[in-house]
Amino acid sequence: MNKINQPPPSIIDGKHRLSVRVYFEDTDAGGIVYYANYLKFAERARTEMMREIGYEHTDTLENYGTSFVVKACNVEFAKPGRLDDLLEVETEILIIRGASINLRQKVKRGDEDLVRMDIKLAYISLNGGPIRIPLIVRDRMSDLIILKGDG
Amino acid sequence: MNKINQPPPSIIDGKHRLSVRVYFEDTDAGGIVYYANYLKFAERARTEMMREIGYEHTDTLENYGTSFVVKACNVEFAKPGRLDDLLEVETEILIIRGASINLRQKVKRGDEDLVRMDIKLAYISLNGGPIRIPLIVRDRMSDLIILKGDG
Amino acid sequence: MNKINQPPPSIIDGKHRLSVRVYFEDTDAGGIVYYANYLKFAERARTEMMREIGYEHTDTLENYGTSFVVKACNVEFAKPGRLDDLLEVETEILIIRGASINLRQKVKRGDEDLVRMDIKLAYISLNGGPIRIPLIVRDRMSDLIILKGDG
Amino acid sequence: MNKINQPPPSIIDGKHRLSVRVYFEDTDAGGIVYYANYLKFAERARTEMMREIGYEHTDTLENYGTSFVVKACNVEFAKPGRLDDLLEVETEILIIRGASINLRQKVKRGDEDLVRMDIKLAYISLNGGPIRIPLIVRDRMSDLIILKGDG
Repeated sequence: MNKINQPPPSIIDGKHRLSVRVYFEDTDAGGIVYYANYLKFAERARTEMMREIGYEHTDTLENYGTSFVVKACNVEFAKPGRLDDLLEVETEILIIRGASINLRQKVKRGDEDLVRMDIKLAYISLNGGPIRIPLIVRDRMSDLIILKGDG
Repeated sequence: MNKINQPPPSIIDGKHRLSVRVYFEDTDAGGIVYYANYLKFAERARTEMMREIGYEHTDTLENYGTSFVVKACNVEFAKPGRLDDLLEVETEILIIRGASINLRQKVKRGDEDLVRMDIKLAYISLNGGPIRIPLIVRDRMSDLIILKGDG
Repeated sequence: MNKINQPPPSIIDGKHRLSVRVYFEDTDAGGIVYYANYLKFAERARTEMMREIGYEHTDTLENYGTSFVVKACNVEFAKPGRLDDLLEVETEILIIRGASINLRQKVKRGDEDLVRMDIKLAYISLNGGPIRIPLIVRDRMSDLIILKGDG
Repeated sequence: MNKINQPPPSIIDGKHRLSVRVYFEDTDAGGIVYYANYLKFAERARTEMMREIGYEHTDTLENYGTSFVVKACNVEFAKPGRLDDLLEVETEILIIRGASINLRQKVKRGDEDLVRMDIKLAYISLNGGPIRIPLIVRDRMSDLIILKGDG
């Protein structure tokens, strides 16, 4: 894995963007997206961002018994999403540490911010202890932050 | 594990009953329970029925690498469940074979049948092949069928 | 809405295809896709197929108080999907009646059929009674069947 | 609705407790409870706490077009829950305002805190604007805080 010269097309100015359609499964009897489901959207976006920098869950889980897990999230629900909405999850890496990273994620509908999240991910082995994020993954993530800085 | 002399309190006439409350997470923007979620209710009921006859998923999964999986289900959705409903899942074993069983499950609201399901479960090892259901589990299940016959 | 001269790009030979990625939310502790979640994938595919022929849930739900609901499904689980799999849901309309339709859906991984479903959808008003599917929707669906016949 | 003389049995020292069993639907391929699902457990607990003080979602949603919605949540994931765990959700009201309340919720396994959440709920009308929480509901909630103070 080399340094990123050209960022993947879904990453612009260091921000990853994923489109998410709202289906019946995502909504509740209040007619809006059920609050916990924004965390599913956010996890899909993190997974795709990581896949683009060469990290895939099954690979590390099966071969090394390691995984990223969410240690903390701080979520603000500003406006509700609704059935059939085409939303966008915007993900940016804020801080990279040896065994954890901080991200900011927004679920947007056009220019509106529906939900804002600050997420802390830890890298752990399957017995639960923290372990160092592989250097190549941290390098790739750093590239994204630098791209943002250049934006 | 001995033969069942007294069936557990939730099993009467060979039928297991589990109460399930409908929460926002279970509903959709149509104002009713989302159709796939009845399969979650049914799986909770099967798990509790098996727990009562001494079978626990984690035990067999971790110690033997074996598990029951759903091979087929035939579901009729007669009437919709709604937010705050207190439903009951009624489970009865129909047929026990060497490596699979057939069950009938109903999701009820009072006397109304909301959903009827015929389920086929296979017992498999984690590499996917069918294996024999442990004799003691089959014996316990047979007891439930006999109790039903006596009803 | 005119007759379809050119089918939408996701519909070939009368079969609609939708790609679905498997995320952590879709899997369970057995390491495979949780059985009820295939019904979510199938509903996403039906929604997108209908959107392509000009039918959108929110539009009819808000303006007419009508909706398609699943009345029955018959599901066979042949092989398990796994984390990170890129699956495809293939949907074809089998029968169109005045107030209901039958579809066949397959969840595939490459050439493998993982799950096969036969689905019956009814068109209902929000008080629960069956009503006629709008003629234009039935016409569009018929076009898909004809395309299949020509395939 | 009168003042509470005897708190309901599930409320002790102003803290509401709800037991939650972990089923396959709640877990993911990492072998642990999927992080968003703790928010489902928390919502079940808030719903049951409110039901005990006489507030039911469907009643206010249908008759007044009003509902509690989550405006913010701050969640710490300390330890993972696992399949078959019998967890307990502990809910206490911290602050009651005219149109919003703050709660603290913990998901526990025995004496261990698995997840801690600070939640802000707003009371809104279905067009989205904040409205005053009915006085009787606020009174009942205040009773719970007082009970806690006495504990």
